[in-house]
Amino acid sequence: MKRFVFSIALIISVLIMVSNGYSQGEFKKDQAYWIWYPGDFEIWLSNKILGLRQQRGVIMPPIWPLYHHYNNVKFRRWVSLDRAEKVKIAVEGQYVYKIGPYIQYENTKEFLLPKGDYEISITILNYNSLPTFWLEGETVFSDTSWEVTFFDGKYTKAGAWYFYMSDEPPSKFALKKSPIDCKILEKDHLKIVLDFQKETFAYLNLNDIMGTGSLKIYYGESLEEAMSNKAETIDVVFINNDNHLQLNTARTFRYVRIIRDAGLEIGTINALFEYLPLVTKGWFSCSDSLLNKIWSVSDYTFRLTAREFFIDGIKRDRWLWSGDALQSYLMNYYTCNDFDLVKRTIIALRGKEPVYTHINTILDYSFFWIISIYDYYFYSGDLDFVKWIYPKIETLLEFCLSRLNRNGLVEAKPGDWVFIDWTKPAMSKEGELCFEQILFYQSLKVFSMLSELTENQENFVKYRNLASDVLTKINRIYLREDGLYVHRRINNKIDDKIFKHPNIMAVYYGMSNQDNSNRAIKDQGLLNLKVPEIITPYMKFYELSALCELGEHELVLEKIRSYWGGMLSEGATTFWETYDPNEKGVEHFIGGNIDRPYSKSLCHSWGATPLYILGKYFLGVKPLSPGYESYLIEPNLGNLTWISGVVPLNQGKVSIFADKKSIIIKTNKSGGICRFKSNQKPKGEGIKKIGENYYQLYIKDINKEYKILLDLE
Amino acid sequence: MKRFVFSIALIISVLIMVSNGYSQGEFKKDQAYWIWYPGDFEIWLSNKILGLRQQRGVIMPPIWPLYHHYNNVKFRRWVSLDRAEKVKIAVEGQYVYKIGPYIQYENTKEFLLPKGDYEISITILNYNSLPTFWLEGETVFSDTSWEVTFFDGKYTKAGAWYFYMSDEPPSKFALKKSPIDCKILEKDHLKIVLDFQKETFAYLNLNDIMGTGSLKIYYGESLEEAMSNKAETIDVVFINNDNHLQLNTARTFRYVRIIRDAGLEIGTINALFEYLPLVTKGWFSCSDSLLNKIWSVSDYTFRLTAREFFIDGIKRDRWLWSGDALQSYLMNYYTCNDFDLVKRTIIALRGKEPVYTHINTILDYSFFWIISIYDYYFYSGDLDFVKWIYPKIETLLEFCLSRLNRNGLVEAKPGDWVFIDWTKPAMSKEGELCFEQILFYQSLKVFSMLSELTENQENFVKYRNLASDVLTKINRIYLREDGLYVHRRINNKIDDKIFKHPNIMAVYYGMSNQDNSNRAIKDQGLLNLKVPEIITPYMKFYELSALCELGEHELVLEKIRSYWGGMLSEGATTFWETYDPNEKGVEHFIGGNIDRPYSKSLCHSWGATPLYILGKYFLGVKPLSPGYESYLIEPNLGNLTWISGVVPLNQGKVSIFADKKSIIIKTNKSGGICRFKSNQKPKGEGIKKIGENYYQLYIKDINKEYKILLDLE
Repeated sequence: MKRFVFSIALIISVLIMVSNGYSQGEFKKDQAYWIWYPGDFEIWLSNKILGLRQQRGVIMPPIWPLYHHYNNVKFRRWVSLDRAEKVKIAVEGQYVYKIGPYIQYENTKEFLLPKGDYEISITILNYNSLPTFWLEGETVFSDTSWEVTFFDGKYTKAGAWYFYMSDEPPSKFALKKSPIDCKILEKDHLKIVLDFQKETFAYLNLNDIMGTGSLKIYYGESLEEAMSNKAETIDVVFINNDNHLQLNTARTFRYVRIIRDAGLEIGTINALFEYLPLVTKGWFSCSDSLLNKIWSVSDYTFRLTAREFFIDGIKRDRWLWSGDALQSYLMNYYTCNDFDLVKRTIIALRGKEPVYTHINTILDYSFFWIISIYDYYFYSGDLDFVKWIYPKIETLLEFCLSRLNRNGLVEAKPGDWVFIDWTKPAMSKEGELCFEQILFYQSLKVFSMLSELTENQENFVKYRNLASDVLTKINRIYLREDGLYVHRRINNKIDDKIFKHPNIMAVYYGMSNQDNSNRAIKDQGLLNLKVPEIITPYMKFYELSALCELGEHELVLEKIRSYWGGMLSEGATTFWETYDPNEKGVEHFIGGNIDRPYSKSLCHSWGATPLYILGKYFLGVKPLSPGYESYLIEPNLGNLTWISGVVPLNQGKVSIFADKKSIIIKTNKSGGICRFKSNQKPKGEGIKKIGENYYQLYIKDINKEYKILLDLE
Repeated sequence: MKRFVFSIALIISVLIMVSNGYSQGEFKKDQAYWIWYPGDFEIWLSNKILGLRQQRGVIMPPIWPLYHHYNNVKFRRWVSLDRAEKVKIAVEGQYVYKIGPYIQYENTKEFLLPKGDYEISITILNYNSLPTFWLEGETVFSDTSWEVTFFDGKYTKAGAWYFYMSDEPPSKFALKKSPIDCKILEKDHLKIVLDFQKETFAYLNLNDIMGTGSLKIYYGESLEEAMSNKAETIDVVFINNDNHLQLNTARTFRYVRIIRDAGLEIGTINALFEYLPLVTKGWFSCSDSLLNKIWSVSDYTFRLTAREFFIDGIKRDRWLWSGDALQSYLMNYYTCNDFDLVKRTIIALRGKEPVYTHINTILDYSFFWIISIYDYYFYSGDLDFVKWIYPKIETLLEFCLSRLNRNGLVEAKPGDWVFIDWTKPAMSKEGELCFEQILFYQSLKVFSMLSELTENQENFVKYRNLASDVLTKINRIYLREDGLYVHRRINNKIDDKIFKHPNIMAVYYGMSNQDNSNRAIKDQGLLNLKVPEIITPYMKFYELSALCELGEHELVLEKIRSYWGGMLSEGATTFWETYDPNEKGVEHFIGGNIDRPYSKSLCHSWGATPLYILGKYFLGVKPLSPGYESYLIEPNLGNLTWISGVVPLNQGKVSIFADKKSIIIKTNKSGGICRFKSNQKPKGEGIKKIGENYYQLYIKDINKEYKILLDLE
């Protein structure tokens, strides 16, 4: 079967469409697309992905319920034809179609639509793969103007993506592949050890094989892993006089060890790197080469985990995790800005009705899923998607509400997983945790806002009031007099341990916007050496954000240099799931479980955290209203000599250069407001003073270079 | 791949198991079974069946939502082993298993369970077919003692059926096949016409083929259909020097016309009849050979439609329809008494959560589905199944309640189909129909009873009160002073047309048990020639039942003779979907739609109605308490000279002979009570008078022949 490759040509045309607004359900006119029940492509594709996790050679299925695409769906549209029209059709599944009320008894690849006004409909049955079709006439095309039902008594607008070739249906969807080479580290009569120079995700290719026998392939993110029989991913294959072997599942590795039976010879070995061809729309550069290296490795880490969906880690789990994904979305808005990838991931994470468990079974991850939709809306301005996903947010939130404890607070029920973060020492997670209440509050708040946006007045009021109630409870129960949030309440008693986590979130979500509270959180919480350090890139995402919100940019750069720089000095070519600077050498790679010593993921989406921090808080760009209708540019040098970069806007971009003497801004999208601090009166057209040493400039003209001179010496 | 045949040996062992109570979730001890998430085998298998409907060569997918088996499930059980034990395993799907907390990294077909007390678990991922496994040790077996979850946070008892061979997994399930022969009616160089002597369901087999070319096969329930290019089922196949061809889908036909390309020669032709090997447990015979023929053709019709599930018709639709199935269940209780087949059909009809539409989209069919479960319980005594299916009844009834109109009555919403029956003249089905309210009342009533049985006190009271409210409304709105029920209310106005339908149901469900009301229904309704006749076997099922309830046994026999005898005299070898005695010749086969002249089904499950009527009302056997713990035997000769037969009880049977002089009864199950009328004082041990010319005899001893002498002349 011909394999559909997601080609560069296609991607480029997609980008053109995106920049013309096609990403929001508007597609090219007079173009046939493969269409389906909306959301089902994502469910179908994610089911394929979720089945790929391997642990030491055995699969590890997801630990939450999987949904399934609708097996039988009916598409329809009205046509008004002045003259008969020949159409071509391609279908995935068994099908029957009607012209007006008349069933057509010949399933030919071409047929005639007669002159007249009538409904045309097609019903497709397909259990194992997505029921979908493609139809091309002179004026009639399969596109999102069609309606579709799964026979639930309702029709909805058909879903589509960029599949427009009749012989490239969604079932053949595949990422792009490019050959990559390796160095041979060792080769003897039974063993070959290879180094691909950096972490990668690829299909191994063995060429010029001679003989018959078994191969055992050990993949390693580290050399230690590849050399161990307890490597996390292993392939065993049998060669029966095949000249060539391409492994049928892409694996994650930098190193590969191949053990072969005697009598089996292998010629050259390379691999096919598999990737989603993302386009660079945002970047960051500065006067510090270490930070530039960190940004670049973060970007590579991000791209490896940005695939069919945003996955957590490429070796393990290769799964969609809501809390991990939310961070990828935000990094994405400062780099590749692929809105479709965000939507695909949001849809697949949620599944269908009924809601049986929290997203990924994790309490916090249900809330992060809800919050991520508001983020998406705020960066994209895509209200259509909000309207489409709204009922699924509501049922998830109803599920959450149905599980509140008697105090109306969030507390884990049996089967619920409270993740929060990995900490040293370990954090107790029973009872009513402040961290979870804050996420709950934020979810209620954003759902109320989304209800207002979608003109659901009843929910707007209901959830606004609920949010307000929860906020009151949080402040009553957890907020200390000095402004810090304590850890939890359990059995009606306060556990007043201080963790950074709830305090970070309170700052990040702007809950604690009183100066004195923020100061307490900063001085006695985030900067207090007695409070346990954050040791995961995951929570550093929020910690560094909160520190930036508190104006600690220099400290944040220092933390990035030491933490991510620390990984680089350990030889990292991608950033890790966890990094404890106190560990040494192989301790970084080898976990505590004797059965799975290499379970740690050395290429983890949240490892790319600096992408978000440097874009949002140093280039200083963020939307002030949804979809960047208006937006802020507030560059911050920290202690750098200069910074430079581009941030993608919704259908546009802004480029920024800043050093101690100047700020230079150019954008192709109106709505920008530059704010900056300066001890001297700055020079430049249209600058207004808005505070002490604080200035503002409206970026009115597009494609004009605005230059602000700060240091006039 | 080896094809699994549902062998006679297996069936016989099943029957032994059934008679030992294995049908109620009790399986053979120390026997490994393939196990799965309960209900998923039925969903998976019904999806296969529902995709087989064909209309003139194109498929016709169902018009309701299809559900899907759970893709990833985890099984677990606790083991306590004194010594290590070797087990064999077979799995359908990708899997991983754990011994205690330890993942096993080798998926071998045999492995060792160590000594000790621990949980063993296996997680299976399978999108396209049922995730299931089989495990056999010395003391540990895969059976229904295992628990299973689809990761919804709950475990439930695993499901199983009679799959106990490691190489015969559920995915290979197939019915039994036997060769059948035909007569050649016509054969020339391009055409062959065959007659298989009677309606059948089979895979056509072409032997000793020579040459290359196309074959077009037209199947016909009638010769007219087979000779028409608009036959309802058609196969087109291409022969490429194949010596033999077996069609890969079983079709329904008596006649077959094969058109072949020139240059293609076919030797012999036969077919493989496909059937569920049901065992005869009940039968009826009498002094009237026409009635015996009718019983026998009904039995054949019943067996053709009793397959993987009870389907409606074998040519069209081959689907599960709830109202049709309910009647098959009741016929089944008087013939083959296959409880598993009933349960399979009930489960498959209902699907999963959420409820999107009425069962089969038909208002009445949701109610019939609910009512059929009480019937099943009453005949089988199987409370375990009631407990298992109870939550699904509740959610369906909640769906029904959510759609009541402002008067608290049942009324079709857009997308709902009101079927009731086909009538001449056509019945108006808009508004608040009396027929539907009666089914609604009966559903509420039986659900209240099922709630009591499953100790759900809250629902017992709630639904008892709801039923009582609806009954009050029915009697207030539809019940005329003379005791007849009028058709409907629409726009708050009574439409006082009299149809037999609501009156029949009122009698059948015992709603109208006032003598005067029953008399009015009989005299002015059912026997009133001005009221439109019932013209379908479907509604005759209820009409004849109601007439028997009203004591009109002689009339019922007359109606059976004329209606079913009428079909026989038209050449029927199976009984039809509809039969209008006023039509002539091919009018019986040819429908009104010019595109689909042969859409009428000539082998329809409800055509077998006499099986139920003759068993229940002439042999006169019915349970008085659930599962035939006590039961009535009240033979009625009508105007026959003698009747004889056997009725299967739950785990037992009763044989009956009656003529004008005697009644002879023998049973292997206690609890029988024989009642009979006699003008003279009858002779026989233990007979008691219970009314005027009305007597009763307890059948105390099993396996003893009880003989009652009535006519002592």
